[in-house]
Amino acid sequence: MNDDYIPPKVWTWDKGSGGEFASINRPVAGPTHDKPLPVGKHPLQLYSLATPNGQKVTIMLEELLEAGHDAEYDAWLIRIGDGDQFGSGFVEANPNSKIPAMMDHSASPPRRVFESGAILLYLAEKFGAFLPRDPVARTETLNWLFWQMGSAPFVGGGFGHFYAYAPVKIEYAIDRYAMETKRQLDVLNRHLATNRFMAGDDYSIADMAIWPWYGRLTTGGVYNDADVFLDGASYDHVLRWTREIAARPAVKRGIIVNKTSGDPARQLWERHDASDFALRTQDKLSD
Amino acid sequence: MNDDYIPPKVWTWDKGSGGEFASINRPVAGPTHDKPLPVGKHPLQLYSLATPNGQKVTIMLEELLEAGHDAEYDAWLIRIGDGDQFGSGFVEANPNSKIPAMMDHSASPPRRVFESGAILLYLAEKFGAFLPRDPVARTETLNWLFWQMGSAPFVGGGFGHFYAYAPVKIEYAIDRYAMETKRQLDVLNRHLATNRFMAGDDYSIADMAIWPWYGRLTTGGVYNDADVFLDGASYDHVLRWTREIAARPAVKRGIIVNKTSGDPARQLWERHDASDFALRTQDKLSD
Repeated sequence: MNDDYIPPKVWTWDKGSGGEFASINRPVAGPTHDKPLPVGKHPLQLYSLATPNGQKVTIMLEELLEAGHDAEYDAWLIRIGDGDQFGSGFVEANPNSKIPAMMDHSASPPRRVFESGAILLYLAEKFGAFLPRDPVARTETLNWLFWQMGSAPFVGGGFGHFYAYAPVKIEYAIDRYAMETKRQLDVLNRHLATNRFMAGDDYSIADMAIWPWYGRLTTGGVYNDADVFLDGASYDHVLRWTREIAARPAVKRGIIVNKTSGDPARQLWERHDASDFALRTQDKLSD
Repeated sequence: MNDDYIPPKVWTWDKGSGGEFASINRPVAGPTHDKPLPVGKHPLQLYSLATPNGQKVTIMLEELLEAGHDAEYDAWLIRIGDGDQFGSGFVEANPNSKIPAMMDHSASPPRRVFESGAILLYLAEKFGAFLPRDPVARTETLNWLFWQMGSAPFVGGGFGHFYAYAPVKIEYAIDRYAMETKRQLDVLNRHLATNRFMAGDDYSIADMAIWPWYGRLTTGGVYNDADVFLDGASYDHVLRWTREIAARPAVKRGIIVNKTSGDPARQLWERHDASDFALRTQDKLSD
């Protein structure tokens, strides 16, 4: 740690730096090895992991199925700690090497969709669901969907990284990102004080995008004790909304797809059929 | 600077911290003072500043006008250093207190649109322009539009902040964000090696979103000497694309709207009419 650091004229890569995520952070893009992606029986093929960005999409797919849409999908596990996102097939699906990525095989040739927000919008338009038709509510849904995309990097890549994962605790960085994360929670709290859901009366892709990132900051279980550090439970309208969404059956299913950590009874490494969830007991899912 | 820092159990706001942006960073949302927004003569009212996020929208509006669409607009200056974004009228337009925000007075009541990506999509759909109708190109445009929204916070809020603006130079943070910024430049460089524009043959809102953030990292003039530090000119396909877009007349106009710094001849604090640009000389604009 050096606070009198003078950057060099031109940055060079020190492969020894980077902390816990050193193995998956690189200054270059592109594939590191040849590996085609597996393809299952359904039109929609998802390649993901149950991070908040991954959960957005599995929640959406389960909500679509719950609502009766023909959104059957195969969810394949991408182990980012093992570098699966740098395989040639994955990079073709998403040149940014981040989960989630989706291929729609109902198109010919199969169509790639990447970035969680783009996937939510693609699915909402494909199935005509969870994106209000009313112009005011539609605009508001997209406002908040884009808000989430531009805001959460300060929570995950900023606060979460410096508070929980970085190899040293840097007060300036923790302060910077804790302040911004609390500001974002307050933005949501004020909005949800007078709105049942992000776009008003109707649950939408804006809620699905925001809930996995911000809901858990009010209820705990993330970044060590970050909910205490941020006083998450004080954002009472966010907490009310978080609990309402957490009780939805599709959300209970969606959050365990491609999950490989935590309670083994809440992990479904791959999902290829609705019956796969029967491997979990309803008792364990509903608590 | 303390690298043995132990965070407190619950974070509290030290109003003295925060460096250059201490006055505009807060852990709470909402208005700080009553101030209605001005409203001009055109249907589209933009409240903005010529940061990269602001320039995205003024470029789009000027491109729409250049292409013959009836996208006349008033662009009002929001001085974020003075806290204009915390005025009551601005917060109603964008509860997130960030520029740009837009009100569409052709709707009744006037419709708020916030987040630069949402504004680009709103305008593209309203005018049927710069978002390809072909399903493959449309999906690809939205993939890259969302990519920009989720990626640039690592460039601006991360790299730019720690490299140029933070009160101390923190090697770990500069390394972290320089690496990610270079990775993103390489993602673009590989894509633009085989694509004229982000979504293929057609210039789109994806280019308008990405160019103000990444183009300047290859040509200089941002974050002190960041283009040298990042070896920006080595991303030769990004550089080729940057120059092609920089030469567009609408881009030359769009980037100076709501600009208050740099060459006085390249500043147009407010824009209310196409004739406002005549205040600049064409010679000065075209070099």
